Amino acid sequence: MALRRSLFCLLKTQLKHNCQQSRAQSVAVIGAPFSKGQKRRGVEHGPKFIRDAGLLERLSNLDCPVHDLGDLTFHHPEKDDTCMQVHFPRTVGRANKLLAGAVSSAVGAGHTCVMLGGDHSLAIGSVEGHSRQCPDLGLIWVDAHTDVNTPATSPSGNLHGQSVAFMLKELQDKMPDLPGFSWMKPFLSSRDLVYIGLRDVDPGEYYILKTLGIQYFSMRDIDRLGIQRVMEETLDHLLARSQRPLHLSFDIDAFDPSLAPATGTPVNGGLTYREGIYITEEIHNTGLLSAMDLVEVNPLQGASRAAMEATAALAVDVIASSLGQSRVGSHVRVDEIPSSKEDTEQLRL
Amino acid sequence: MALRRSLFCLLKTQLKHNCQQSRAQSVAVIGAPFSKGQKRRGVEHGPKFIRDAGLLERLSNLDCPVHDLGDLTFHHPEKDDTCMQVHFPRTVGRANKLLAGAVSSAVGAGHTCVMLGGDHSLAIGSVEGHSRQCPDLGLIWVDAHTDVNTPATSPSGNLHGQSVAFMLKELQDKMPDLPGFSWMKPFLSSRDLVYIGLRDVDPGEYYILKTLGIQYFSMRDIDRLGIQRVMEETLDHLLARSQRPLHLSFDIDAFDPSLAPATGTPVNGGLTYREGIYITEEIHNTGLLSAMDLVEVNPLQGASRAAMEATAALAVDVIASSLGQSRVGSHVRVDEIPSSKEDTEQLRL
Amino acid sequence: MALRRSLFCLLKTQLKHNCQQSRAQSVAVIGAPFSKGQKRRGVEHGPKFIRDAGLLERLSNLDCPVHDLGDLTFHHPEKDDTCMQVHFPRTVGRANKLLAGAVSSAVGAGHTCVMLGGDHSLAIGSVEGHSRQCPDLGLIWVDAHTDVNTPATSPSGNLHGQSVAFMLKELQDKMPDLPGFSWMKPFLSSRDLVYIGLRDVDPGEYYILKTLGIQYFSMRDIDRLGIQRVMEETLDHLLARSQRPLHLSFDIDAFDPSLAPATGTPVNGGLTYREGIYITEEIHNTGLLSAMDLVEVNPLQGASRAAMEATAALAVDVIASSLGQSRVGSHVRVDEIPSSKEDTEQLRL
Repeated sequence: MALRRSLFCLLKTQLKHNCQQSRAQSVAVIGAPFSKGQKRRGVEHGPKFIRDAGLLERLSNLDCPVHDLGDLTFHHPEKDDTCMQVHFPRTVGRANKLLAGAVSSAVGAGHTCVMLGGDHSLAIGSVEGHSRQCPDLGLIWVDAHTDVNTPATSPSGNLHGQSVAFMLKELQDKMPDLPGFSWMKPFLSSRDLVYIGLRDVDPGEYYILKTLGIQYFSMRDIDRLGIQRVMEETLDHLLARSQRPLHLSFDIDAFDPSLAPATGTPVNGGLTYREGIYITEEIHNTGLLSAMDLVEVNPLQGASRAAMEATAALAVDVIASSLGQSRVGSHVRVDEIPSSKEDTEQLRL
Repeated sequence: MALRRSLFCLLKTQLKHNCQQSRAQSVAVIGAPFSKGQKRRGVEHGPKFIRDAGLLERLSNLDCPVHDLGDLTFHHPEKDDTCMQVHFPRTVGRANKLLAGAVSSAVGAGHTCVMLGGDHSLAIGSVEGHSRQCPDLGLIWVDAHTDVNTPATSPSGNLHGQSVAFMLKELQDKMPDLPGFSWMKPFLSSRDLVYIGLRDVDPGEYYILKTLGIQYFSMRDIDRLGIQRVMEETLDHLLARSQRPLHLSFDIDAFDPSLAPATGTPVNGGLTYREGIYITEEIHNTGLLSAMDLVEVNPLQGASRAAMEATAALAVDVIASSLGQSRVGSHVRVDEIPSSKEDTEQLRL
Repeated sequence: MALRRSLFCLLKTQLKHNCQQSRAQSVAVIGAPFSKGQKRRGVEHGPKFIRDAGLLERLSNLDCPVHDLGDLTFHHPEKDDTCMQVHFPRTVGRANKLLAGAVSSAVGAGHTCVMLGGDHSLAIGSVEGHSRQCPDLGLIWVDAHTDVNTPATSPSGNLHGQSVAFMLKELQDKMPDLPGFSWMKPFLSSRDLVYIGLRDVDPGEYYILKTLGIQYFSMRDIDRLGIQRVMEETLDHLLARSQRPLHLSFDIDAFDPSLAPATGTPVNGGLTYREGIYITEEIHNTGLLSAMDLVEVNPLQGASRAAMEATAALAVDVIASSLGQSRVGSHVRVDEIPSSKEDTEQLRL
């Protein structure tokens, strides 16, 4: 089984690498209207808002087939008591189990999978499902936060701040057996993860970052190095030894709150628009993006309609840029410019 | 005649080069209240708004004589049917013929010419008029767009998106004989042009950029290289072989829409204030700026009075900085600080 | 006495240097509700607004003792005629005498002193008082303006634009004997001062900058070099020869007006949030910050309540970051992550 998976991913990597030089792969969009990884109402409307901001029209310009798989329907258990200070463990666990299956199917069918959240606890299922098809994936986590608290270190008990802890093999003995999560076990090595955009890290999280030697680029690092070098080092860290599928988990709160106000836990001093787009362009240019999440767009947190719409439009730009929309480029090829005179030769390269 | 022009420009280059070390040259301001290169109402009020934002007072601080030549009066033909999908060809052609003459006269009289648009189709006349006096000019086009569609590639048929195509010798056989443009022919080589700020380029335009090997710096390039290196390469490209007069054609939509909202075709992810000012400072510092355009300020596109005024104030900053206003510098020379005691020597260098 | 002071400061430098590796020093906060160094009402409310924005709660997270010494009470002379074009010389002089004593006491008691302005004329007293304890201090002045006019060069006659001229030994013979200032004499060499953020410098000030060879980084320099290199060069300039106490005098108008609108003399094109925080992080990381000013927050200048609050919150961020708050870091140490199983070893470094 492990061998079969490896062969599958080798083929996929090969395929994607080829795609880069030829044409875009097909895309599958999965909506995940879910909010129980945190306590603010509204983030479950994220998929609708991102679609309403024109996601599918925009992707249709990219010259690759797009399949909208619609929204998942989550069934919430009637009773879900807090357990070891963790809120809604069964609800979050089951939702992620459902999502993991959907992502695994989409990636297995050859699509680049785009998951629209919903809160960031959904990354547990999205990355786990992706890893079923591609166990050697590299994970790029763009976020103001590390989301790597364990139940014991979490100040809030919200699971959207603990997603990465569920994934990491190195934290296995720190994670209690929570109800709702028996379907999964840790699948990612800490060396296969890079953070970008950090600026609000809890003390326990900082300890984990340092103890496990996780590669991260805080906003201070971006200030020091510039986003170009940050992306060079990120891709070098994940791809230097070998080409592998990439998972991009993009929390909209990585952006500065002036750009993405409609989110639950904004933190000052975030990414500029151009830095965010540069990150996604660079990831697209590897030809290895295999699945991505766009999470934490919460329309009820915007102070105005304009704030909401700006945040949703930004989410669309991030996704489109990850999938090949370029600022100056050849998303649609032109092979000649019509001449104004019948008897003149065409301008050609 | 060609010889006479060359001698004139050689002299001018010499003169300007000298100016750099001594004092600013005289400036002539020409208003061009014109909007028929596109379809949004309001851009014809640009010259008035930029003047009302205090342009002339600001330039009067720069220690060089300023001549306000007022606004041109454009006579619109009664009937101007769309021709080969191009809208208002006769109106735009005649306006540019008038403007070309005015710019040529101003530059010929020894002024650095500042043209206030109006829409960017006016660059056809402004650069053409400038080139009559200085056929060896180099053109720096700061814009979100390339404005290099031909009538056949233009998605909109608006001439403000085709200005550069009228100038380029290499596109001569792609340009039909449009009514209104018989007074001019292409005059610029594609190697004498540099774009800065691109982020919305049509497929046909991208083909032209690549086919002709035009030097350009998209926003992605600015993200990669930084604005300092972009300006180094821009000036190196145009001036490495020899000193020559420069024409700066600055579309206010090169700036991010958060800074310049009052414009017709805003595109996210544009220049910061400081990048825009840095560009103009570097151009001023060459001592070779001979004419410039500031176009596409459209007061009717601002969502509020504050948005309008911010855009017009930005236009004033761009012009003043192009003409020598410095952030920390010696626009007015001081040669000593008065001592507080009669018997003390003055502080001198 | 001079020897005693030198020994004191040597000890202090040693102590601070040690602190860097161990724990934060105690902090003393002094409010200076004073506005007579300029003419706009409101800046005297700065200390209250900065406190209301949560300064003390924030500092209490930093794991160092914080002493709020309250606000100084300034007695304004009944009559204070303009003298040599300088407004309110007696009022400003006496206020600074009082402040100098308070800062000297706080620094002498071993605290890192935080002065909340009020207008920037207060730096005269703050830096003078600091220098009584630490005559070898280095001064970092973060500001849109140089504030180095003499009474004879000042266009406005406001003392908040002349603070540095009172400090500099090299300008001694340019400074008249103003009423209110007999208690002090110049104490700082121009080589012990670095400016960051300049973009509005009067002609006389520019002459002084150049004549005295003062190290400065204008916004243009930051555009050219990047903030990382600016801080490297700043700290190298002040600390290369020897470790010494640092005084940070931070005018909130160094930030772009879009971030700090509630201030009296905003100038476009200022520091980004991230640049401001980077500056303070780097200063904190030296372990040598001994006193700081945060001035020119003027709640009456904000166009809205949100503008006011954003400016005050920014002031809190600057102070907290100067004193050790980090974007990703170890302000509170964690030494292990609880295991989920009794029989598992703790995760340790």
